[in-house]
Amino acid sequence: MENIIAIIDLFQKYSETDKETETLTKKELKELLETEFQQILKNPNDPDTVDIIMQSLDQDHNNKVDFTEYLLMIFKLTKACNKIIGLC
Amino acid sequence: MENIIAIIDLFQKYSETDKETETLTKKELKELLETEFQQILKNPNDPDTVDIIMQSLDQDHNNKVDFTEYLLMIFKLTKACNKIIGLC
Repeated sequence: MENIIAIIDLFQKYSETDKETETLTKKELKELLETEFQQILKNPNDPDTVDIIMQSLDQDHNNKVDFTEYLLMIFKLTKACNKIIGLC
Repeated sequence: MENIIAIIDLFQKYSETDKETETLTKKELKELLETEFQQILKNPNDPDTVDIIMQSLDQDHNNKVDFTEYLLMIFKLTKACNKIIGLC
């Protein structure tokens, strides 16, 4: 249960750096990825990495990532990690 | 990142109690729900609760919950929790 709360807190930690606290801007998403998921990003400092991830998440094309789109990222990251762990 | 690993570990903790380590049986799912998510289940000890959750998760109707189906549960639980937290 605490992991679920932690995932929610993580979104709020980065989405609340500006007035629009319900979404992540590209800048906020970049900070989240570089700080929290650096180990699993191929080229964390490559600007294209964030653009590619932003485009794949931003389902409603408003240049922001809302909570559901963010959860989709967590869903995909968890599946990818499970596959990698399964190979060890 | 540690939360993602914890979610993967949680699945494995309960799916490995029998020979079929890639899926959760109804019994394993019941134990997981009662141990890990008791606070947010209306009637955790009501057998119907597990049946209802099992049916909604078991997309391929094989009476087992695989990792993807489990992640869908985590996705839905996290969305529901976020809504509740947003109301506080």
